[in-house]
Order: sequence, then C-alpha cells, then structure tokens
Amino acid sequence: MSQASVSGSVIKSYLIEPDGGVLVDVIVPESERGSKALEAESLPKVRLAKIDVEWVHVISEGWASPLKGFMRENEYLQSLHFNSLRMQNGTVVNMSLPIVLAIDDETKKNIGSSKDVGLVGPDGDLLAILRSVEIYKHNKEERIARTWGTTAPGLPYVEEFITPAGNWLIGGDLEVLKTIKYNDGLDHYRLSPQQLREEFDRRQADAVFAFQLRNPVHNGHALLMNDTRRRLLEMGYKNPILLLHPLGGFTKADDVPLDVRMKQHSKVLEDGVLDPETTIVSIFPSPMHYAGPTEVQWHAKARINAGANFYIVGRDPAGMGHPTEKRDLYDPDHGKKVLSMAPGLEKLNILPFRVAAYDTMAKKMAFFDPSRSKDFLFISGTKMRTYARTGENPPDGFMCPGGWEVLVKYYERLQAEEATPAAVSA
Amino acid sequence: MSQASVSGSVIKSYLIEPDGGVLVDVIVPESERGSKALEAESLPKVRLAKIDVEWVHVISEGWASPLKGFMRENEYLQSLHFNSLRMQNGTVVNMSLPIVLAIDDETKKNIGSSKDVGLVGPDGDLLAILRSVEIYKHNKEERIARTWGTTAPGLPYVEEFITPAGNWLIGGDLEVLKTIKYNDGLDHYRLSPQQLREEFDRRQADAVFAFQLRNPVHNGHALLMNDTRRRLLEMGYKNPILLLHPLGGFTKADDVPLDVRMKQHSKVLEDGVLDPETTIVSIFPSPMHYAGPTEVQWHAKARINAGANFYIVGRDPAGMGHPTEKRDLYDPDHGKKVLSMAPGLEKLNILPFRVAAYDTMAKKMAFFDPSRSKDFLFISGTKMRTYARTGENPPDGFMCPGGWEVLVKYYERLQAEEATPAAVSA
Repeated sequence: MSQASVSGSVIKSYLIEPDGGVLVDVIVPESERGSKALEAESLPKVRLAKIDVEWVHVISEGWASPLKGFMRENEYLQSLHFNSLRMQNGTVVNMSLPIVLAIDDETKKNIGSSKDVGLVGPDGDLLAILRSVEIYKHNKEERIARTWGTTAPGLPYVEEFITPAGNWLIGGDLEVLKTIKYNDGLDHYRLSPQQLREEFDRRQADAVFAFQLRNPVHNGHALLMNDTRRRLLEMGYKNPILLLHPLGGFTKADDVPLDVRMKQHSKVLEDGVLDPETTIVSIFPSPMHYAGPTEVQWHAKARINAGANFYIVGRDPAGMGHPTEKRDLYDPDHGKKVLSMAPGLEKLNILPFRVAAYDTMAKKMAFFDPSRSKDFLFISGTKMRTYARTGENPPDGFMCPGGWEVLVKYYERLQAEEATPAAVSA
Repeated sequence: MSQASVSGSVIKSYLIEPDGGVLVDVIVPESERGSKALEAESLPKVRLAKIDVEWVHVISEGWASPLKGFMRENEYLQSLHFNSLRMQNGTVVNMSLPIVLAIDDETKKNIGSSKDVGLVGPDGDLLAILRSVEIYKHNKEERIARTWGTTAPGLPYVEEFITPAGNWLIGGDLEVLKTIKYNDGLDHYRLSPQQLREEFDRRQADAVFAFQLRNPVHNGHALLMNDTRRRLLEMGYKNPILLLHPLGGFTKADDVPLDVRMKQHSKVLEDGVLDPETTIVSIFPSPMHYAGPTEVQWHAKARINAGANFYIVGRDPAGMGHPTEKRDLYDPDHGKKVLSMAPGLEKLNILPFRVAAYDTMAKKMAFFDPSRSKDFLFISGTKMRTYARTGENPPDGFMCPGGWEVLVKYYERLQAEEATPAAVSA
C-alpha cells in the first residue's frame, strides 16, 4: 500500500509497488530543459535508431523500473544470465531482456573518455543525455543465444536490430529532454505507468489484471477476460479493473499493425464485448523480441510497474514459429512455467489462460470441453488472418462484427497495395 | 555454524552450511541394498553412458545439494533461465548447469507409465533407482544456446554427449545402490563433500579456500594459493585450509589427463611448493562443460557443499577458445563478474585471481607489476604444453622440477604412442 499524489490531492493506493519501490521517471522537468539541451549540444553524440527511441521511451516512463538508463555491463550480465537484478539492499527484481544501446567503432572513438553523451533521434533532434557512460563489448552471438535460446537466422528482432548494430554497448543513466511522442493519432492511448496508476486509483481499483496482446481481440479473449473479472469478484475483490494493453513498439511484418489493432479494440468496447467501465485500453510502448519464456517475464514485470497485480498468461506467450525448422520455437507451456518461477515476480499473481475455442454447437467462443472435443474449432491467428485476407467470414460469434470489419478492410487495403507495383516501390 | 558427527563424537563445525541446509546423500544404506536391488531388477531400465555415471556420482554425494536426482522440468527450466532454484521456503540456491539424463524414444516407450526406473551402468551393473520420474522434451538447441551462449559446432561436451543423446530428458529422485568407484588407483583421492567436511573439522579449519583446476600446478598458482592463505591469516583466520581440487570427470582430449595431473600435484606437495599441513588434495568428480561464466558458478557452488567459504577465481574460468572463430569463447573477465553477482552465492567469498607471470629479473613466478611489464613473461597453458611436448625446459622457477618431470614423461609417452600406428588402432 503506498500513497500517490493525484491532481494535488493525496489518495490511498492499494496498487502493487513498482519494482525497486519507486517508479523511475527520468524525464527532465520543463524548467531544466533549456540548460540541459545546451549542455547536450556540447557533448559527443550517439545517433539513435527508431528502436532505440522506443527503448528510451520505455525507460523514461519507468516501465523498466528500477532501471534508470541503458544497461551497464553488470546489469547486462545479470539480465543475460539470471533474468534478474540484485539491488543494493539485497532484493531481486526481474529483468529478463537486455535493454541496451549499441554503438559502432566510430562512435566509440568519438566519445573517447567523455563521461556523458547526447542522444540524437533519427530526425536529428536531441532527445536525451546519457550520464556516466560505460562502454563494453557487444558479443552479439552470446546475447542472441542467451536471450532467444537459438542463433538460427530469421529472428525478426535480431535481423532488424542486432545483426546490423555496432560491436559495443553503451550504458548509463538517462535524462530525457522531452516526452517521446509519435504523432500517429494514437499518443492519447500511450499512458505512462504513472498515468495508469492514477487512473486505477481514480477508479478505486482494488485489483488490476493485465492482458498483453499484439493481435486483434476475438470473443475467446473476451470470454477469458470477462471470466477473469468474475473470478476476481468471487475471490472478494470489489472492483477489479482490466488493463487491455496492446504492445505498441516494433512487431514483425506479418503482425497486424498497431493502428488497425487499436481500431479493432475500440470496436470491441463499442460493441459491448468488454465493459468500458471496468476496462482501460492503453498502449504498451515496448518493442517485441519474440523471445518466448524470456520475454513474457518482461511483459509481466513492466505491468507490475504500471500497477497490475494479476497477469494473464496464455499458450506460447511471445512465441513464434522456429525460423528454420517446422515447429514452435518454444515449448508452448514453457512461458507460463518460467513466468510462475521467475525471480522478482513472486508478488505478481499469474493467471494461466484457459483454452477457449469455437463451440460449433453453441455457436460461440467457449472454454474448451475435452469431453466433447469434436464440437470445438480452433482458430489460430494464422487461420484468422487467412479468413480476413480471403474475405471469408469466420463462424458467427468468433469476433464482434465491428471488430471483424476493421480487419477485413485492412487486408483489402493491404492486398490492393501489394497488387500495385508503384505502391511497393514507393 | 552447525554440528557434525565425526567418528561417533560430536564436534562444533565452523564450516559454511551446504545449500538447502542439509548435505544430500542418496546412497542407499548397506542393509537396504539387497531389497532395493531386487526391486530395481523388476523396473524398466535406462542404460547410462559413462558421463551419466559421473553425474550420478556427483548427485549421490551431495555436490549438487539440494538436488536429489536428475532434474525434473521445473528444475531444468529454472537452471536454464535463472541459473538458480527457488526452494519451497523461498530461499534461492545456485544451480547454473542443467544436470539431466537424456533418453531416446525407444527407452521412453519402454518406461511407459512406470513411476520408477532402474539405472544400469555401461557394464550392465544396476547402479541406481530413479523415483517418481518425469519425462519431458530435450530441446537440445535451446539447452546448448542457453548454457554455452553459442550453438557453434565443436563444443566438446555438446559434441560428445548432447548431440548423440536422446530427445527426452528423465528427471526423478535418485537412490544409488553403491558408492561409485573408478578403480583407477585414484579412488582414495575422491573424497565426498561429507568426508571433506569431516577432514576440515578434524584439522579445525576456520576458513576453507577452494582452488578449482584442470591443469598442472605451476609456481604462479602456488604463489597465488600461498598468498591467499597469508591474506586470510591477516584477516584474522587462525587456520585457513586450502582445498586443491582438480576436476576428475570428462575433460577435452587435449587437456592433461587426470592420472598425470594427480602425479604432478603430488610432486608439488612433495617438493614443498604447497604445505601438506594446510592443504588437502582431492578430486572433484564433475565433468567439464567448458561453459565459462555459467560453469564457474557450478564449480563454486559445489565447493560450498564441500565446506569451502572462499573461492579463488581466475581469468576466463571454465573457458576455451571459440570453436569456430579466432577468439576466446567468453570475455575473460565475465567469469568473475558473473560469479560475484550470481544468485545463491552471496554467502561465498569470491577471491579474484591476481595475475602471476614469470619475472625474468627475479627468475621466479611473481605477481605481475605493470610498471615493469617488459620484465614479465606470460606462459599460457598452450605454451606450457608446447615446452613439455618439445622437451624444452621452461624458465627456472616456473614449476618445481619434480612436477615438470611428470609432464615431460607424459608427453614423451604420448608422442611415442602417436608415432606407433598399432597403438593408435588398439
């Protein structure tokens, strides 16, 4: 139980404590921005890629609390080997993904022995200062092997961001000169952990259950979320609030893009499949690693920082097909097993997903009943996308009609673009 | 501080507690062996390879305490992802290497739904019962990637034991029907953790410092060990005892074999380079993984179980050259860094190696003095083996003459064998 100051008044919060006890916020106050920006101008510069800006965003708002910047080597090694960090007071927090900034030889040389560096966005804007930097080797092979449990070619995050990255990592404490905005019409969905906590307090939540997703919401998901709320009420909670929390950072090319997903999620609430009174839809700014059991810990840990004390975990979380073999990259059960044993996540209640499928007798999504398994139809993400792409309707009751229409339109537009060579080369 | 019963009398022990509080001992008492052996005969059988017997040995004597048998999936996943196990009371013990038993499809089928299985040694002897077994997938790629941080071909343990192994792992609680013996003339060196603890108590050790090695002892090592004792005395300990603890299980083909090393170590004590009064030489029965920062944790953790509260760690512990690239597989500093931060090893005092080299002015091994670096000669293991192989003498004072002679004779014999085709094909 902690106290949070909301709009001037102090209210009692029943929300779970952030990792490390205090939510990290390394966004420089308005009043100091001018002088810090001037200082940053005089420092050696590191040019950030788009993915680095996503991580600056994540760190700056405290999703990775108690991490205050890009990892130094001690943090990197603990993350890689132990999926956790030991704090000075002996407590352990979860930290399963290396949150690091890569630089090349040339940039390292330019930095020389400077203690601080300026971070410059892809457009040339000065975004942040990194203080008391430490530069250490970026052993890509080891990072990939220990994070993904494979070094097979074709891992989306690896191919896009690690293979082309520099051979050095630079860690340090961040000071972010302004709040990261994307100007894509979705910024109002990007609530920080602090803003989410304030909203949960405003609604007087006594339990917050988070649902991480990177796919459209079908009625099976909705059934699960509504059933979770029912179970929490049965457990004695008076006002459980759902955090429907789509991931907003990098996703692989064949995932449904964020803007389409947000439209689809809106329809799901408009159509009354989920109750807006007890649901908050917000964007989680992290990029996807598709690192299965390693990544699901990050997904859960970040939601603790946003105030969630219950976390719903499904089959094969953050998983994908093996890039070179015909099988799932991860054992579909390992995610929830690893999550339930992960250091630093003991205080989080893990709620394993019950399997929902389309019940062809009841003509709706229902919890799978193994005693009449032949009545159930499993509709995978791939199958769902095939329906939408071919314009074929899924069985009645699979998804609310408004949400389905959003997907069909997206795939129509995509196919039109793909059929137009000019659009491809544009 | 705990109490140990030694030869009937109860003496106070100042030794560090074993992991989990109690030293595991799963060797069946003599009186029960007959009936258990009969029972084992009736069970489905798993045929062990030589390496599996080494692990049965390790587990049976409690080196891996609190592990009571081959890992079940929950233990395996925690080891792989967190290098540690969380006990039921919430405490954490270090466990960085998966200690697992692989079986093939045929064996899995034979076991069927049997709860217990009999373990049969390479010679057909019934060695042990594995109780309440759990069979789960052996994802070799993931195991290798997460343990070694690479999947490059040419890792000795992988090529010898993992690649040819079955696609399933079987975990369970061990009951070992007799103490594992090798009958190689070295069994008297194979003291169990319990026997070592008794010996430390008998000598009234108030500090035990362990030195893990798989190479001959040169005077640089000796300098380090003697200097460590001096430092411990300065710290106020009255009777620090050195555990000189060569690894006795599988090592790669170009390492010096165990029997030669043991002869060499004996000479080092005979020649007075190390003091027999304050040194115990014993064999650590574990096989080598050559898994660097992951394995050094195992090396340290096992020595806690044997009573050591100080552990000396060197440059690139348990490291080797990258199997396909011209570089060290691991950053030489990562071992000691990872060790110093490893979960479950907080109670162990880590003593980083000071660099010793041959001082050409003083004509002896001495701690490296960077202010006159050109006076020092670094003699690597490879260089040392080249000296011994070519019959060339290393500089005076590099190693005691008796120890050096053992090595020269070994390489002479090896070369003679290699030059004799009949011996090779025998």
